[in-house]
Amino acid sequence: MTLERVGVVGTGLIGTSIGLALTRRGVAVALVDVDAGHAAAAAALGAGDVADGVALLECDHIIVAVPPSQVPVVVGDLVRLNVRATISDVSSVKSNVLDEIRRLVPHPDRFCGGHPIAGRERGGPGFAQPELFEHAVWAVTPLPATSREAVADVEALARLCGARPVTVSPDLHDRLLAVVSHAPQLAASALAGLLSTADGLAPALAGAGFRDTTRLADSDPDLWADITAANSGALAPVLRRLSAVLSGVADALDEGDRSAVADLIAVGRRQRARLPGKPRAVARPALSRVGVVLADRPGELARLLAAAGAAGVNVEDLAIEHAPDHPVGFVDLEVAADSADVLLEALSSAGWAAHRTS
Amino acid sequence: MTLERVGVVGTGLIGTSIGLALTRRGVAVALVDVDAGHAAAAAALGAGDVADGVALLECDHIIVAVPPSQVPVVVGDLVRLNVRATISDVSSVKSNVLDEIRRLVPHPDRFCGGHPIAGRERGGPGFAQPELFEHAVWAVTPLPATSREAVADVEALARLCGARPVTVSPDLHDRLLAVVSHAPQLAASALAGLLSTADGLAPALAGAGFRDTTRLADSDPDLWADITAANSGALAPVLRRLSAVLSGVADALDEGDRSAVADLIAVGRRQRARLPGKPRAVARPALSRVGVVLADRPGELARLLAAAGAAGVNVEDLAIEHAPDHPVGFVDLEVAADSADVLLEALSSAGWAAHRTS
Repeated sequence: MTLERVGVVGTGLIGTSIGLALTRRGVAVALVDVDAGHAAAAAALGAGDVADGVALLECDHIIVAVPPSQVPVVVGDLVRLNVRATISDVSSVKSNVLDEIRRLVPHPDRFCGGHPIAGRERGGPGFAQPELFEHAVWAVTPLPATSREAVADVEALARLCGARPVTVSPDLHDRLLAVVSHAPQLAASALAGLLSTADGLAPALAGAGFRDTTRLADSDPDLWADITAANSGALAPVLRRLSAVLSGVADALDEGDRSAVADLIAVGRRQRARLPGKPRAVARPALSRVGVVLADRPGELARLLAAAGAAGVNVEDLAIEHAPDHPVGFVDLEVAADSADVLLEALSSAGWAAHRTS
Repeated sequence: MTLERVGVVGTGLIGTSIGLALTRRGVAVALVDVDAGHAAAAAALGAGDVADGVALLECDHIIVAVPPSQVPVVVGDLVRLNVRATISDVSSVKSNVLDEIRRLVPHPDRFCGGHPIAGRERGGPGFAQPELFEHAVWAVTPLPATSREAVADVEALARLCGARPVTVSPDLHDRLLAVVSHAPQLAASALAGLLSTADGLAPALAGAGFRDTTRLADSDPDLWADITAANSGALAPVLRRLSAVLSGVADALDEGDRSAVADLIAVGRRQRARLPGKPRAVARPALSRVGVVLADRPGELARLLAAAGAAGVNVEDLAIEHAPDHPVGFVDLEVAADSADVLLEALSSAGWAAHRTS
């Protein structure tokens, strides 16, 4: 059925972002949160209207966007409220949460698991974005008892948010997320934690690689304790495999077995190449990169792009690199290969330090 | 002494970038490489003049920028050539390389170890940038026999490239780099490699977090086999510590010990906060972020920044997020807190989907 009125229970980053996306599409959104400040902030941002439990009785679908450990109780409460809505959640772990729901709710036909695979290191409504889910995958994980209507509603919800629904069993979902999300999170934290045992000079010697690899370490401890506890069955074996790979490399290093590291890096590189790229990547013409030094002055980037535009060159992509303690940045402009020389010439004659980087 | 003529042996990413930086500062650079194509490419980029061994006799300082395993032999050859220059290297591992130099060179007084801590995943002269070292740390690791002149020349070289020389013992350097560079490299590769054992759907479910955490996995297998073999003594214990942390977390997950993960993430977060930020971070006024949706169209970013400029708002920093398969990007504009409302108003009335994100 058409989703005209949707309830969002839990107005953190994900719930608020869903509210923003749905509001834009003309859906009426009822925002419910035990933290009245969060709900008010979400409403102020345009994610819907602050509501109470009664308003949920009017909804076509209710999204439970609370921390995973609280999802089953909230879903149980909603079923007891006898809402007519179908219900879904957004928790990043499924089996454990869904098992608990089955335990609490005798006939969970109106419930379907869901997980929009998008997020940020920082939580709360203030970091919400209506486009957070655009072109993301939204995993749909029905229970055996889930009705077709509930599945269809989650799929419709995902599409309204700009995401692509992908049906996957709760077990497979959890095994895959352990690999692509939960283990990387803990590895990033463990790597950052190594600084605690190193000499005080260590942070000064850390470069961009360390920053990127440990970016996820800025995440919230409580949220991740919840997530990893809920997926411990799938995650523990992945962590042990990762642990074994690393200690195996340590042994190989001790034994002077150079090929073990070369193999590890070659395999990682091949596997990383399997990550989906931008869809345009196939059809577009060859691209070149032009690196430009950017002083840390207001308006510098705007002037640079205006200069590129004045030269008739379309910038296809752009990456800014800020290294620690650099008051100067590098910008890599990606342009069609046959525009690179024009751009270089234009920027150089306008006084930019520009340089072909590929 | 003043460095008027510098030799660069090895014109990969680092050697070529040094050549570019020195040439800009008016230093004459002689480029030597066993791969004539590399040397020619470096010269074409403006990094200096292609030269042979004889030209090195005229140099004040010679930088050996070849892979670590080849550094000692090249340094030995240079000493046998009886160059008058002081000599340094740029290898990212010091103890092992310097021990081998001491074995090959009876009186290495003209040699001083060096390591500019900057780099990119991709090697070769084509990715070189003259600004690669600006404000980076350049570790200076003298041997006991190293002359003051040689140390002073490496420090002068670092400053000419815009870097900050930091003297550190070879042993401490290697222990720190194992933590902030070599272990993260291998962890990134090991994480990416986990995809090989997962279901084929895994790459589709990988988000921005997985991409960032595994970015280093794109690095060159042979180079890293060299680096890790040369630093095996310091690196193996770090890998074992990391391995033990991860298997310890796996055990805690099995035992239902929720606090172990919370502690791991809390420690990682605290440690990551020790990374140096941009120097301006202290003195500047409070900043806010405004998120804007950016269609994947030529000139879109230039138009956005022009709109910001027209509203009189200085963009202090900018981050573009491209998620997999997204033809739409989000741009986070960082502006002075008291400019955020002006910017939002200006962008919204110009038709941009703009949104306060902090």
